[in-house]
Amino acid sequence: MIALLYTFLFFPLAFAIWPRPQNLTTGTIPLRLSPSFSIKLSGVSQVPKDLSDAIQRTTNFLKTDKLQALVPDRGASSSDAVTSAKVLQSLTAKLSQTSGSVKSISEGAMAGLGASDESYTLQVPANGGTATLTANTALGLFRGLITFGQLWYDLDGTTYTLNAPIQITDSPAYPYRGFMLDTSRNYFPVDDIKRTLDAMSWVKINHLHWHIVDSQSFPLVVPGFEELSQKGAYSSSQVYTPDNVKDIVAYAAARGIDVMVEIDTPGHTAIISKSHPEHIACPEASPWSQFANEPPAGQLRLASPATTQFTANLFKAVSSMFPSKLLSTGGDELNTNCYAKDGPTQQDLKSQGKTLEQALDTFTQATHSVLEASGKTPVVWEEMALEHQVKLSNETIVLVWISSQHVAAVAQKGFRLIHAASDFFYLDCGAGDWLGDNINGNSWCDPFKTWQKSYSFNPTDGLTTTQAKLVVGGQQLLWAEQSGPSNLDSIVWPRAAASAELFWSGPGGDVRTALPRLHEVAYRFMQRGVRAIPLQPQWCALRPGACDIDA
Amino acid sequence: MIALLYTFLFFPLAFAIWPRPQNLTTGTIPLRLSPSFSIKLSGVSQVPKDLSDAIQRTTNFLKTDKLQALVPDRGASSSDAVTSAKVLQSLTAKLSQTSGSVKSISEGAMAGLGASDESYTLQVPANGGTATLTANTALGLFRGLITFGQLWYDLDGTTYTLNAPIQITDSPAYPYRGFMLDTSRNYFPVDDIKRTLDAMSWVKINHLHWHIVDSQSFPLVVPGFEELSQKGAYSSSQVYTPDNVKDIVAYAAARGIDVMVEIDTPGHTAIISKSHPEHIACPEASPWSQFANEPPAGQLRLASPATTQFTANLFKAVSSMFPSKLLSTGGDELNTNCYAKDGPTQQDLKSQGKTLEQALDTFTQATHSVLEASGKTPVVWEEMALEHQVKLSNETIVLVWISSQHVAAVAQKGFRLIHAASDFFYLDCGAGDWLGDNINGNSWCDPFKTWQKSYSFNPTDGLTTTQAKLVVGGQQLLWAEQSGPSNLDSIVWPRAAASAELFWSGPGGDVRTALPRLHEVAYRFMQRGVRAIPLQPQWCALRPGACDIDA
Repeated sequence: MIALLYTFLFFPLAFAIWPRPQNLTTGTIPLRLSPSFSIKLSGVSQVPKDLSDAIQRTTNFLKTDKLQALVPDRGASSSDAVTSAKVLQSLTAKLSQTSGSVKSISEGAMAGLGASDESYTLQVPANGGTATLTANTALGLFRGLITFGQLWYDLDGTTYTLNAPIQITDSPAYPYRGFMLDTSRNYFPVDDIKRTLDAMSWVKINHLHWHIVDSQSFPLVVPGFEELSQKGAYSSSQVYTPDNVKDIVAYAAARGIDVMVEIDTPGHTAIISKSHPEHIACPEASPWSQFANEPPAGQLRLASPATTQFTANLFKAVSSMFPSKLLSTGGDELNTNCYAKDGPTQQDLKSQGKTLEQALDTFTQATHSVLEASGKTPVVWEEMALEHQVKLSNETIVLVWISSQHVAAVAQKGFRLIHAASDFFYLDCGAGDWLGDNINGNSWCDPFKTWQKSYSFNPTDGLTTTQAKLVVGGQQLLWAEQSGPSNLDSIVWPRAAASAELFWSGPGGDVRTALPRLHEVAYRFMQRGVRAIPLQPQWCALRPGACDIDA
Repeated sequence: MIALLYTFLFFPLAFAIWPRPQNLTTGTIPLRLSPSFSIKLSGVSQVPKDLSDAIQRTTNFLKTDKLQALVPDRGASSSDAVTSAKVLQSLTAKLSQTSGSVKSISEGAMAGLGASDESYTLQVPANGGTATLTANTALGLFRGLITFGQLWYDLDGTTYTLNAPIQITDSPAYPYRGFMLDTSRNYFPVDDIKRTLDAMSWVKINHLHWHIVDSQSFPLVVPGFEELSQKGAYSSSQVYTPDNVKDIVAYAAARGIDVMVEIDTPGHTAIISKSHPEHIACPEASPWSQFANEPPAGQLRLASPATTQFTANLFKAVSSMFPSKLLSTGGDELNTNCYAKDGPTQQDLKSQGKTLEQALDTFTQATHSVLEASGKTPVVWEEMALEHQVKLSNETIVLVWISSQHVAAVAQKGFRLIHAASDFFYLDCGAGDWLGDNINGNSWCDPFKTWQKSYSFNPTDGLTTTQAKLVVGGQQLLWAEQSGPSNLDSIVWPRAAASAELFWSGPGGDVRTALPRLHEVAYRFMQRGVRAIPLQPQWCALRPGACDIDA
């Protein structure tokens, strides 16, 4: 049999690699895994623990995934071909580095934006024997292991592909591929976060943007600031202790994910009033709609030197809990009426002879300088760059959230930016207004953002070539007003894989050829215990293209 | 201490009874359950097994619910009151019937629409001792046991209420309170259906409308028609065998739920072409949009005498699998172009000298007469009453689904009706278009239907007093194009409790006072392993009214 080799930018068959590699060549020869298939690391004297763990997980998934091909007969008609296929005995993973100590996956993940090489090459021969994975870093090997785990189907207990030989050369288009989780509106136990990190790693997402606290609750236990969570968490069990944080950060890093924590300030801080009433303006003021975008109202007294110092100290303490070089200080949805009605703030402004914007500038510089002293890059929501008169360091990275229409304005100011626009990437949109008595109310960001919508985003739309270089990546986001552990997986997966591919593979993907692969992501996730949803009737999932508009 | 007794139509406190009883009187005296609390059945010589099982389940939930009060301190400030409260030792359940054999819950549930008395009275004294539950039937006792299970909170292991004495007299406003599940677009394992039945019973829903087959798959194994599922189920494991059906029907009945199966005909039958191509017009015809409302196209050849006989025989076989007196024959979304382009149908019409509508009338009468001969009441989607020239028996019950605006027209024709309108009750709306390549597409029934929307429906809007009597009840519905086991619970609960209260308690409920109770439904469901979602940030759930529009 002659291997018919052809390169696909888009795959004509369902073939579950997600995100799609930069270069992929496949054949049409069946190949199966040996029952004693193993993954060997070659030429590394001291194997990082997280790499050997990743190899073990990959080996286990090859045994337990049991994903049947998504075709009407689930692969049955390939039975003879599979039974008589040659056998792949092993995968050899090699680092191009041949001497010296090898940096772990975790070190690579936390090295800083784009500082660690994620590229890899993978070769699966058609004649059996040994496949080869090569990378410059443990992080690159990890990305390749994930890809290798996506090549296989199950038929009556045999793990096989119909597409050998397979050759892949791959690397990411953007260094930041994220997912944001809000753990303040509703609390998510540590295990839910870990399961999410696993799922993220399976589609090569490399940043968890952890919106850990907000006006509703303060679950983070911060050494030296324990009163914040004692008074501000929903309960003593709905918290993230320093040990939990360490555990989550390490779990993420071992999966190639950096954890960027956000302490949203000076707005979105109402709950701090429970432990520090002196620092909060308009706490739970009524009617809330005059003082905040959602209940409860309450913002840090940004004009107060004591509050500024408190916030700077809090940032310093939080900085030391999270090894990432990125830390988000928030800065969205500042309500000016809250400050206009706050006596102490008005007094502070008057005594300092400052406008609110001038005070915000002082507050921001004071709090950001603590981060910079700790070696952190501040990340802010777009208002800080677009709506306020605040001097931000050139290093600052801006999260565009209100609208994708604002991307160009941020780029024009010369800031690096992360795509997180509500009109493309908000996973919570479309679930109705959650206010108690708004009978006919819709979601503020209606309609629901489908995976197709996110997937079709163009990261450099309206940008010059120079400005395009400011785009570090993007992410989908889950705000948790209407979410908890019960619907975490089903709201996020497989939808959040859309931006994972967009920012790994680059834009221009075709939803028609992406969908069969995305179905496989969903079904594989379900096999692995992540409650991804079916995007279509199973009838459609088994028949690529049959449920397109004009099919 | 003097008990301050006052009657609430709407409760000023969160007090988790759902649906709200017709009459409720509560006090302000704390009361706790004895650690050895028990439920005793009095005056019944032969206790139906399903009743003793229900008592056991109720007793277990009292121990395992561990639902903390939804207040900011989760009940801590009531600690002294709870500790010193009097102790309720037992609940005595009594049937007003004192002799003869007692009908089981199951017999009551399946007796026919409104044929079994569901009323009960419940008295919980303030001074401890024994509470009393009285009903005319085992089914009534079961409804009362469910209510009793909702009265209690947990504080450090003690099960308590702050609202004794409690007196309830209760009965349903409507005999049909349903939930519809589509198991054809995606398959749901038996355990998922059972968990759903449990949850339904906790809010006194008494009908499962099981849309078991459709164009996408035929999971029902029908004796004598095994080829339908052999060729039409997604796989040999994604089926409901006769034993599964028996099991599910019995499980439902023991929980006061009647299972109304639907075999949707003559449309929505494409998958039958896999085993019986001779009976299906336009199978998987392309482009599907000219032949059906969604892929795949395919409809029973309603003008064919052989197909009519096949369908009648199928109905007869299915009828004998489901003891309910209700069976839905469907009848929605008939595509005339499919028949216009189908040679055999055109030949049949020509040879019989009939129009398509006349043939549909013949088909319907022939297939419905089989049901009537089996003692079943046919249930149809609204088009059969409003769009077609079909003579339906006066006994027929019509499901209004396209729009609530069509209710009056159905009533005007004198048919009994079930509210199931997409603009109020469709749980799947608002999740985006699921067609593969519709990048900017929204759900056809956008926006999302919030619980508030369903809850605020008026079942007799626009009807005369006489017509209003034709309303037998209503239901929320889950069409499963974008659902599977992963999001079943989270899409359905607690939202589907909205219609449960609407059709048990009657209309006119206030969303502001309902929400605190609905939060308790959600949190209690989570405690019991049903993945209900939080409707709001937990901050709001702990502070009734604080997240209303004008709060």
